[in-house]
Amino acid sequence: MSKAKEDISIVNIEIINTGNELLIGTTLNTHGAWMGGELLKIGLRVKKQVTVSDGDAIGAELGRALTENDVLIVTGGLGPTSDDLTREEVAKALQLELIEDEFATRTIKEFFSSRGKTMAACNLKQAFAPCGADVLPNAKGTAPGVYIPPRLGSYECAVFLLPGPPFELKPMFFEEVVPRLKALSNDSLELPKMHVMSFIGVGESDFHEVLDARLGEDQDLEVGYCARPSDIDLRLIGSEASIRRARELVLEKFATQCYTEDGSSLEQVVVRLLAEKKQMVSTAESCTGGAIASRLTDVSGSSAVFAYGFVTYADTAKCELLGVSEGSLAEHGAVSQQVAVEMAEGALARSGATIALSVTGIAGPTGGTEEKPVGTVWMAIALKGKATEVWVENHSRGREIFKQIVSQRLLAKVWRVLQSM
Amino acid sequence: MSKAKEDISIVNIEIINTGNELLIGTTLNTHGAWMGGELLKIGLRVKKQVTVSDGDAIGAELGRALTENDVLIVTGGLGPTSDDLTREEVAKALQLELIEDEFATRTIKEFFSSRGKTMAACNLKQAFAPCGADVLPNAKGTAPGVYIPPRLGSYECAVFLLPGPPFELKPMFFEEVVPRLKALSNDSLELPKMHVMSFIGVGESDFHEVLDARLGEDQDLEVGYCARPSDIDLRLIGSEASIRRARELVLEKFATQCYTEDGSSLEQVVVRLLAEKKQMVSTAESCTGGAIASRLTDVSGSSAVFAYGFVTYADTAKCELLGVSEGSLAEHGAVSQQVAVEMAEGALARSGATIALSVTGIAGPTGGTEEKPVGTVWMAIALKGKATEVWVENHSRGREIFKQIVSQRLLAKVWRVLQSM
Repeated sequence: MSKAKEDISIVNIEIINTGNELLIGTTLNTHGAWMGGELLKIGLRVKKQVTVSDGDAIGAELGRALTENDVLIVTGGLGPTSDDLTREEVAKALQLELIEDEFATRTIKEFFSSRGKTMAACNLKQAFAPCGADVLPNAKGTAPGVYIPPRLGSYECAVFLLPGPPFELKPMFFEEVVPRLKALSNDSLELPKMHVMSFIGVGESDFHEVLDARLGEDQDLEVGYCARPSDIDLRLIGSEASIRRARELVLEKFATQCYTEDGSSLEQVVVRLLAEKKQMVSTAESCTGGAIASRLTDVSGSSAVFAYGFVTYADTAKCELLGVSEGSLAEHGAVSQQVAVEMAEGALARSGATIALSVTGIAGPTGGTEEKPVGTVWMAIALKGKATEVWVENHSRGREIFKQIVSQRLLAKVWRVLQSM
Repeated sequence: MSKAKEDISIVNIEIINTGNELLIGTTLNTHGAWMGGELLKIGLRVKKQVTVSDGDAIGAELGRALTENDVLIVTGGLGPTSDDLTREEVAKALQLELIEDEFATRTIKEFFSSRGKTMAACNLKQAFAPCGADVLPNAKGTAPGVYIPPRLGSYECAVFLLPGPPFELKPMFFEEVVPRLKALSNDSLELPKMHVMSFIGVGESDFHEVLDARLGEDQDLEVGYCARPSDIDLRLIGSEASIRRARELVLEKFATQCYTEDGSSLEQVVVRLLAEKKQMVSTAESCTGGAIASRLTDVSGSSAVFAYGFVTYADTAKCELLGVSEGSLAEHGAVSQQVAVEMAEGALARSGATIALSVTGIAGPTGGTEEKPVGTVWMAIALKGKATEVWVENHSRGREIFKQIVSQRLLAKVWRVLQSM
């Protein structure tokens, strides 16, 4: 890290994201929200976020942003092309000379040679950084980041330049940005904390009716909700004491619906519980087409609890892979209680698992009938040595979120079953 | 619509989104990208997008934004609470008096009474608008929007105030904003078009080396790239003639790598081609855990081309479901050429499909060895009546994007195979 004196109070933080694609609807800007959330975890609040196009548009923002902020984080524009001007514009605004960083040059050359590729000449401009700045290594790409400590240039503001692609940005943020911000904010006051609790099976209006008045009594507590199609986050921001009191109030009412308080996904919670309870799960999926198996196997370590998944999109697949009877299919149709039960029990028997899930439904937009409209979905859970549970729901908010909602409902069911084991 | 003289040239458009949740990572700001895309469809470009917190933070932005822009669109802060100050701050900045709109009052009262609810007194503040402004009806909620024509207040800038919730914002945008913007930009020149081409198997630097100089000759053409972990979009913005010329140049060099020009996903292209060529595909997945089957079944109509998917995460599952030999597993290990081939051929035989894909690899972060490091992945494609193709790759950029890259690589392989059929 650079040796410049670094202790400042971080009050104002601004994020500037550059990229034409963010302004014309082809790419969603996820950096702002993501970084805001990560900064809040270390007690820092983003005050403003600005998106501008590629090229020299960043130049017009810098004079204002460097004056208004204690910390400025810029993403994008560090690439090799003529439109990548973040490095140049920032050096100009700070009145610092751009010089080549030999270590960065070597790293970029190695990035290409280790992949058996030749480096294009234009990539070398990525090795330049303002004189006296820290060059931040990029383990995932060719564009190193840059850190300019407060008062190195002509402003009090500390400046981070980070690459645009999320898979390059995120590791650099954790490894290079967070430690520097923690060092910078050494002398700050007690930082507010954020605590997020995730619930399933309860709506935002339930919270409003039952909790808003009680939580509102604490003037120092900030309460917010984030509702998704099939679950909801409650966020509490305030002092540790405020959060502790609020959390107790919330759990008094909704303890059984709270599936995590550490930001885990439902599949992470389920995989952890399966391992704890020494259970193996198997999936028999029709309309979700492998989405439940895929969510489970997104979790590192899932091989200890998941071995077999059956994606039986066609009737013949249900018969051959899971032993569903042709009679049931003929009599009740593929989207039926009977078939859901046979799918789950078939998966249980053929996988040797202790828990098996099944789902068969009509994702739409076509395929619905008067009796079974689009969105109809039968789900079952079979447990070794117990009676199989089966139920029907309707989720007709569109094919795009159908899989997300249905897989969340089934994982929630497994979570509840596991808790009572 | 108001009668003020409205014809201006729209060059600078800015969007300001207000909302604490957008800055602390709990809600993704989708308005900016969405609105940018919709505006481009009517030939207008967003120059800047700014996110600030709830309350009076909007006030600090207005002086600058009203001076810099021809059109300013503000979302959020029109609700009934004390933190909803957009209306008040904008009236102040424009030096316009806020007056009650009787039609708005009646509409808000009806919104509640039609739902059998009593209106809270605070909701009435939503019926106020700057004197002379248009009140924009809100079919989905209580907060009407506001349109302030250019020069009604003390600025040349036209201002739209729109509600934050997407399901209220979107209908209002189409019904109230788009017609007004079209009227405002009456005297504009020929509107630019956007054309997006998606490629796989070619990197950004390949485009730069081969095409940048040629494409750069057309001064009226804007070229941009959006690189994802395993494919890339090239976007061309300009006149129809410019786009036509550029597209020809691009296809001269990269026709075989271009998988869509209509915004389809690779899985949509593959499902369409499978149907066209009357092929059925099956999947045998280990490390991708159902992600390929899930992507295929994301496409409406996929049941015509996909019937069976095998998620064989454990060795026993590979043997029992796909007929992989225990000898191959013992001799070569699960992540091997031999096992990939047997998986694909097993899936082909057991599903009755004409094309089967297999994948077996080490997603990480654990499980790697010196010989087979994390990221090693064997893939195979078996075709009815032909020799099975098998190959190895390494993708060690992290578990999060491993599935995305590997599934994209395999779908790309199917796409290429289908093209030559």
